Amino acid sequence: MSEMIFHLTCPDQRGIIAQFTQLLFQHHVNVLSLEQHVEPDESLFFMRTHADLRNMTISSDTLIDLLNKIEHKLSGNLTIHDPLKPLNMAILCTKEQAHVNDLLMKHQSGELNCNIPLVISNHDNLRNAVEQYGIEYHHLPVSAENRKSQEEEISSLLENQNIDIVVLARYMQILSPKIVQQYKGRVINIHHAFLPAFKGDRPYQKAWVRGVKMIGATAHYVTEDLDEGPIIEQDVESVTHQYSVKEMIQAGRDIERRVLTAAVKAHLQHRILLHGQRTLIFHS
Amino acid sequence: MSEMIFHLTCPDQRGIIAQFTQLLFQHHVNVLSLEQHVEPDESLFFMRTHADLRNMTISSDTLIDLLNKIEHKLSGNLTIHDPLKPLNMAILCTKEQAHVNDLLMKHQSGELNCNIPLVISNHDNLRNAVEQYGIEYHHLPVSAENRKSQEEEISSLLENQNIDIVVLARYMQILSPKIVQQYKGRVINIHHAFLPAFKGDRPYQKAWVRGVKMIGATAHYVTEDLDEGPIIEQDVESVTHQYSVKEMIQAGRDIERRVLTAAVKAHLQHRILLHGQRTLIFHS
Amino acid sequence: MSEMIFHLTCPDQRGIIAQFTQLLFQHHVNVLSLEQHVEPDESLFFMRTHADLRNMTISSDTLIDLLNKIEHKLSGNLTIHDPLKPLNMAILCTKEQAHVNDLLMKHQSGELNCNIPLVISNHDNLRNAVEQYGIEYHHLPVSAENRKSQEEEISSLLENQNIDIVVLARYMQILSPKIVQQYKGRVINIHHAFLPAFKGDRPYQKAWVRGVKMIGATAHYVTEDLDEGPIIEQDVESVTHQYSVKEMIQAGRDIERRVLTAAVKAHLQHRILLHGQRTLIFHS
Amino acid sequence: MSEMIFHLTCPDQRGIIAQFTQLLFQHHVNVLSLEQHVEPDESLFFMRTHADLRNMTISSDTLIDLLNKIEHKLSGNLTIHDPLKPLNMAILCTKEQAHVNDLLMKHQSGELNCNIPLVISNHDNLRNAVEQYGIEYHHLPVSAENRKSQEEEISSLLENQNIDIVVLARYMQILSPKIVQQYKGRVINIHHAFLPAFKGDRPYQKAWVRGVKMIGATAHYVTEDLDEGPIIEQDVESVTHQYSVKEMIQAGRDIERRVLTAAVKAHLQHRILLHGQRTLIFHS
Repeated sequence: MSEMIFHLTCPDQRGIIAQFTQLLFQHHVNVLSLEQHVEPDESLFFMRTHADLRNMTISSDTLIDLLNKIEHKLSGNLTIHDPLKPLNMAILCTKEQAHVNDLLMKHQSGELNCNIPLVISNHDNLRNAVEQYGIEYHHLPVSAENRKSQEEEISSLLENQNIDIVVLARYMQILSPKIVQQYKGRVINIHHAFLPAFKGDRPYQKAWVRGVKMIGATAHYVTEDLDEGPIIEQDVESVTHQYSVKEMIQAGRDIERRVLTAAVKAHLQHRILLHGQRTLIFHS
Repeated sequence: MSEMIFHLTCPDQRGIIAQFTQLLFQHHVNVLSLEQHVEPDESLFFMRTHADLRNMTISSDTLIDLLNKIEHKLSGNLTIHDPLKPLNMAILCTKEQAHVNDLLMKHQSGELNCNIPLVISNHDNLRNAVEQYGIEYHHLPVSAENRKSQEEEISSLLENQNIDIVVLARYMQILSPKIVQQYKGRVINIHHAFLPAFKGDRPYQKAWVRGVKMIGATAHYVTEDLDEGPIIEQDVESVTHQYSVKEMIQAGRDIERRVLTAAVKAHLQHRILLHGQRTLIFHS
Repeated sequence: MSEMIFHLTCPDQRGIIAQFTQLLFQHHVNVLSLEQHVEPDESLFFMRTHADLRNMTISSDTLIDLLNKIEHKLSGNLTIHDPLKPLNMAILCTKEQAHVNDLLMKHQSGELNCNIPLVISNHDNLRNAVEQYGIEYHHLPVSAENRKSQEEEISSLLENQNIDIVVLARYMQILSPKIVQQYKGRVINIHHAFLPAFKGDRPYQKAWVRGVKMIGATAHYVTEDLDEGPIIEQDVESVTHQYSVKEMIQAGRDIERRVLTAAVKAHLQHRILLHGQRTLIFHS
Repeated sequence: MSEMIFHLTCPDQRGIIAQFTQLLFQHHVNVLSLEQHVEPDESLFFMRTHADLRNMTISSDTLIDLLNKIEHKLSGNLTIHDPLKPLNMAILCTKEQAHVNDLLMKHQSGELNCNIPLVISNHDNLRNAVEQYGIEYHHLPVSAENRKSQEEEISSLLENQNIDIVVLARYMQILSPKIVQQYKGRVINIHHAFLPAFKGDRPYQKAWVRGVKMIGATAHYVTEDLDEGPIIEQDVESVTHQYSVKEMIQAGRDIERRVLTAAVKAHLQHRILLHGQRTLIFHS
């Protein structure tokens, strides 16, 4: 490992940063960036550190052992990521092209640090758009009868490809509880409304009826509670009474894809720390 | 009357604009602006016309008669406003200064075309801030015991001053149903959240817990259903996990006052048409 | 012609709307939308009218004659468009994919009412991305030696395909004066900065050095004066000191494509009126 | 001193954070927040640290000595601020009320951590608005004849009140070079345009003529080069062709005051690091 990102959550106390940075300094590890946050009401400390190990005088395993010792001493929770090892990402979608396309295009241009071994859809219309990038396209239509078996097929595909993160790019099916459980904190969904307003289906229709003056989109981690998972990114755009529902959908599509792509990017850069129903989005 | 704004709502049909503009043209009335909108699903036509009567060859009363004849022919609903006759506006507030201040300052600078004969508050702290503008300040503290009588006192004040529009500039009390009924479509409230998310009280607290990435404010007409009235204006601002509830409140205050002032301005310029739970905001 | 959009510019005077709408009403033409604007300092009147001719009792040619009569009477300038006849659009680009892709995807989804017979680029890398939509791709590399002949080749291609509108989707070459002249008011360019700041090349580099806190993009009509043509659409996004030039470019790309697409959409819907160096963007 | 904020700029090297946090840890100083930034092209490191000294086992003077030792070792530049000691702020203004009012109101509500001993204006109209807050108002009209003496009067007032920061809240006079020099990096101006577009005077007039679709405002530190100082904060708002210059000015005023107040707040919280013509705005 020549670079390392580690996330720490622990009770707030004196000397947290000092102990970690001292350890790194001693062993010739260079801190590339360090960002911390304290939740004062809960007395909780959060930190993300990005370190360069290239001149390190000990082995990675030894470093990890030493980091874990501090973690225990601080009663903390430490997770370690290798920023140079791209995550494996699966995209699940339906007929909607814009969101998938944005992810694939930005992946190709080097903006998203990941592998995308496969796209799964319950429709076949995006096959060409996906395969032109040399990515496998799996058409798995879902009906009441085959739901169980298709869900298992999806599970197998994700496992066989060692998928780290699942992106629901307007996948209109509900994921099986098994997958939600297995990929906890690693499934990102785009909801086409400014949550918590307009949960559930047909949000633009509801927004139109309610006469809102802005429409929005929300990218969030998927949990068992539909549309209640931790919010990662949100954005809105102004609309007027002149917008029909169809025009709201068109305008919303642009917001959705940029919100989804931004959320995926933050996840791939290991910039998101989960804290209950809240996310901390670090910038370093 | 030397200028006139009229609003029309009627079933969509051929020749609506022609009949009105022809009438105006015949009698030497100049159209300063005309804006229309069609709701295709309901086949409803809406129009706002601003006309200059200075060279008119008939009397205002005759013009109004002729306009009403077309109104009946079209099975429409026509309302007439005199843009040169400022509305009488009452502001109801509590301890919060920013919103009241913004309204009074913009009124003084000529940006809000209205008279503001009085401000009513259940606290006394804004007296100086209001009276420096030469505006009456009425301190009417509300308790469980005196609620009825204070509501009647408010009613009397509004009636005595011929109030046309009531602005709730963070007035934390619920208006009496009588006032709501009497001033239907003429009471504007600012809700400190992006409706329909976070209805009711303590919206910033709720937004913080939910971990939203944007906070907002909504100006709406007051109806019997709390926070369900037609939305006039909305805006949002980005927040991060670093914002405390208190910082959200501070950031929100700026959004609230500009949303409220914009909504009041649109009302005073007779640019708002009500259509059920929706508003049409015209720009002319 | 079963629908018609006409644009009118004329000296402001009484009865303009009346005369046009009366004519349309007489001949059973239904006004679908009408939007007007007055420049008070210049006493100039602008109008866009969208009419339904399906029940018209006269021929299109007769209608146009009658409209032209009013045009002359008012000393105006009237242009007529058929909204049901899609314009022919050519896209000129270089290696940058996002902008071309957005236009093609939205064209396919029906959001852009036009034909796109060809894409011209001085690089070959977008061939597949374009041809998958069944659109011709012309690779015309430009060098000092072949510039003249390539410009003529472009001219021929545009003429042979009866191109109505040319979109420069990050085409880094300067168009020949002949094309600029021939397609006056019909060539749309995207400039990757918030004009008039950062004209010319490498705007993100300049913006970084200047330490701006927002970056933007501007879609404008191309004129002989580089980056000085009438602005159609602009948007911005916040950046921080943490953004490198490369990250500004990435963030800017998203703004650019949505600004360009919005400008193209407005042109295709005949919603833009030119007035010197200013544009009027109508919404109807 | 019971809390301390220090800013560090130094060549990037291994162990910077470790050395500082280790020192603080040893002497029982708690890090409340720490934010750093690296400019990779220049290999420069920037850090802002906010520390709680309440349980410190050494004196403030000793701590400062020890910090300075590290500063020298790193060939850095360290500046120390006491966040609990409010800065003394002077506001210079002309007739425009909104900006002054916003600063005073937010100061009163506790949002701006500073003392405001005086407001200086070349007009007298804001006297009441200022004195109601118990703040001295100095009316110093400037003419060609008295410019020199008035500038010296301003200098004296600033010195007598130990002013730390000067805020130009739409002060339309040019500050004397002496004051600019003396308060380098401590004079904040609001320019009513999105710099570097529309430098100089009458920016809204220029923006109107150019037909821009957004107007903006920029808060920046004042330097000898007019409107070229380091940018602190910027924001924009959409406008349409329907906006007159006067309406642009009204809309702009809201942007200006929120941009100015945000910039002042960042300065008062010692969140701004200057780096040539760029600013780093830290959030901690």
